[in-house]
Amino acid sequence: MSDTAEERPRRRSREQPLLVVNTGRGKGKSTAAFGLMLRAWAQGWPIGVYQFVKSGKWRVGEHKAAEALGGIDWFKMGDGWTWTSRDLEESSDLAREGWEEVKRRLADQTYRFLLLDEFTYPLTFGWVDTAEVVAVLRERPGFQHVVVTGRDAPAELIEIADLVSEVTKIKHPYDTGQRGQKGIEW
Amino acid sequence: MSDTAEERPRRRSREQPLLVVNTGRGKGKSTAAFGLMLRAWAQGWPIGVYQFVKSGKWRVGEHKAAEALGGIDWFKMGDGWTWTSRDLEESSDLAREGWEEVKRRLADQTYRFLLLDEFTYPLTFGWVDTAEVVAVLRERPGFQHVVVTGRDAPAELIEIADLVSEVTKIKHPYDTGQRGQKGIEW
Repeated sequence: MSDTAEERPRRRSREQPLLVVNTGRGKGKSTAAFGLMLRAWAQGWPIGVYQFVKSGKWRVGEHKAAEALGGIDWFKMGDGWTWTSRDLEESSDLAREGWEEVKRRLADQTYRFLLLDEFTYPLTFGWVDTAEVVAVLRERPGFQHVVVTGRDAPAELIEIADLVSEVTKIKHPYDTGQRGQKGIEW
Repeated sequence: MSDTAEERPRRRSREQPLLVVNTGRGKGKSTAAFGLMLRAWAQGWPIGVYQFVKSGKWRVGEHKAAEALGGIDWFKMGDGWTWTSRDLEESSDLAREGWEEVKRRLADQTYRFLLLDEFTYPLTFGWVDTAEVVAVLRERPGFQHVVVTGRDAPAELIEIADLVSEVTKIKHPYDTGQRGQKGIEW
């Protein structure tokens, strides 16, 4: 066996498509995912961001930066719509619609880095079937990193994930009655 | 009292210069800080990044993105140098040099968002005096957000911080012998 042939498996084992889950009740789950996105961008990879929660000014900073960097497709489920919407029927439809789109992109291998921001919520709410998500992510073809953020990631998702971080709140300005502010919260 | 006068204090209290600390043993402390940097960038704020650990490919993705975005000053303490350097004397000198520079920038109010990446290490190692850091950060003039990342943030720093998140490792590819890879670790 030549040296080159011996090196190949080692190189393959370094490059693995990862499922990353950032969960927990602290701040920094999504910001960490967007920090990771910068590394993917620097590699020149096609990137897709699916924002499963949109409320007011959330992620406007990250979105603006993504537009400036270029090469990042950004999708907001139900523009201007929040999970606290009274029309839960519609919200669940939008979440399912978003997931169907993600499934198509995974099947087509459109992206090398997919960020499913706040995707744990539609799972927790039962709007999107966790078992189906687990099966689709586990069996995704090719080389696609997937990052899922949000509180209370389902155990089945954590089970199949490669890298799971939990962010815990030690201290927060809200504790002392301070409100969210630009450049920090959005 | 007019409505406008009544509104003013409320508006002031919303905008507070924050000391943010991302600590813990999990992945995502620095990536979360760089995600936050995107929000600061989107506000058009002058940004300074002080990278207190530089080893190999660390942060190359974030650095490349910062250069593409523009308006972000990036300083690496001791280019090509790591904390594991055998010449600890020199490493401590470099760390102190970096902190002295940060002090000058804080005094001059050069930036509105300062990222002191991996800054807990020189504190833990005793290379930079934690009491002095705490005093300087607490008394920093004007409006300067400061973000500190790294494991084992000193209690005194957490004490004066406004927002503290701890990142815990639930699962990591290294656990199964997998090595770091581009687009994820750098």
